[in-house]
Amino acid sequence: MPLGTLYLIPVPLADEAAAKSFTPYLTNTVNEINEYIVENEKTARKFLKEAGLKTPQSELIMHDYSKHNRDNSTVDFFKGLQAGKNVGLMSEAGCPGIADPGAGIVEKAHRMGIKVVPLVGPSSVLLALMASGFNGQSFTFHGYLPIDKVDRSKRIKELENLSERNDQTQIFIETPFRNNPLLEEILKTAHPKTRLCIACDLTSANEFVQTKTIAEWQKKVPDLHKRPTIFLIYHR
Amino acid sequence: MPLGTLYLIPVPLADEAAAKSFTPYLTNTVNEINEYIVENEKTARKFLKEAGLKTPQSELIMHDYSKHNRDNSTVDFFKGLQAGKNVGLMSEAGCPGIADPGAGIVEKAHRMGIKVVPLVGPSSVLLALMASGFNGQSFTFHGYLPIDKVDRSKRIKELENLSERNDQTQIFIETPFRNNPLLEEILKTAHPKTRLCIACDLTSANEFVQTKTIAEWQKKVPDLHKRPTIFLIYHR
Repeated sequence: MPLGTLYLIPVPLADEAAAKSFTPYLTNTVNEINEYIVENEKTARKFLKEAGLKTPQSELIMHDYSKHNRDNSTVDFFKGLQAGKNVGLMSEAGCPGIADPGAGIVEKAHRMGIKVVPLVGPSSVLLALMASGFNGQSFTFHGYLPIDKVDRSKRIKELENLSERNDQTQIFIETPFRNNPLLEEILKTAHPKTRLCIACDLTSANEFVQTKTIAEWQKKVPDLHKRPTIFLIYHR
Repeated sequence: MPLGTLYLIPVPLADEAAAKSFTPYLTNTVNEINEYIVENEKTARKFLKEAGLKTPQSELIMHDYSKHNRDNSTVDFFKGLQAGKNVGLMSEAGCPGIADPGAGIVEKAHRMGIKVVPLVGPSSVLLALMASGFNGQSFTFHGYLPIDKVDRSKRIKELENLSERNDQTQIFIETPFRNNPLLEEILKTAHPKTRLCIACDLTSANEFVQTKTIAEWQKKVPDLHKRPTIFLIYHR
């Protein structure tokens, strides 16, 4: 029997951002499949509705890919795909597999010879990079920096050096309730002429993306508390 | 007078990929502005039509941001923005500023205090990473590798080491007519257990994304000649 296809389905980054997030192809795709592997069933159902799902929710099959289930070997995420059914993979926000745990499912799909189709949608890392004005020909996304203050300060210096040496944009994130201490640390540690882009609440009504030098940011420090933010630094 | 807003407008990666590429918000945005900074006027006009532009093409103001004009200081790309008009930035394919020259315009916009709004759309780098199954928590995009064979081979080894040392996905591209020699070089240079993802013709009818070990790829080498391709390697 031929295998099904695994569709990678991005979801919105913010509330009321459906029109900014979904393509017509994505809407068609979710109306043609009824089985999903999801990080959070409740939000996944909400996103599918926002995306224009016509199938009754009761007809959907949802496999829970949240933390407590991920390494549970008795859960068979691939049964449908192996029986020839097309299946959608959705994460909590943004693109499955980018700064989120979906990559493990995709990896296994490749090993099993399952066709993988990525759909266009919002990625906060990509939107931030595009809007930063920094080098998009060479960039690194590092995920989270160390939590320890000394290690983190050292890491910021390292990223600054990497950026200068390789003419490369350095991108990182923080848990939103720790954004303000991280920003403080960056402003204290980095060179006054290093440029910092802060991309905050992307695709929401409160979105702002601004690139300034460290010296300029020091004059007026924005409040990023609990606001999803991407940090980008560039020094050349 | 308040400044205009610079909208960063992604364009399709392939022919007949409009439904896979454009969000309703993008269509609304292009119908609300009539001034653009573009890398190629002819393709920009084609994309705007595909995106659902209703404004007559004759009413559009197009600033040419192609190579021969980019450093021409007599061309004022920002006149409209400074007069309070909203302006769209479009590249040849994908997202402006990512693996393409648009970043210079965005950089200058930030320096002038102009608001920058990135729109969701296709990025081949992002789609490839999502579909690779590789680490999306840490990744580097390197653009092009060196053309010289010895340097290139050395660079492939370096990227493999970087990937192992930092648990980091390494992403790169090549001019499509040189894809086959590059692939040959990777298969000759990299460790048999290193995994290579080839993401080819993304969003087109011929799209394929496959992740295999170098040893597996060596058994059956795909023909990538003149097909836009993203290469990703991952070794851990």
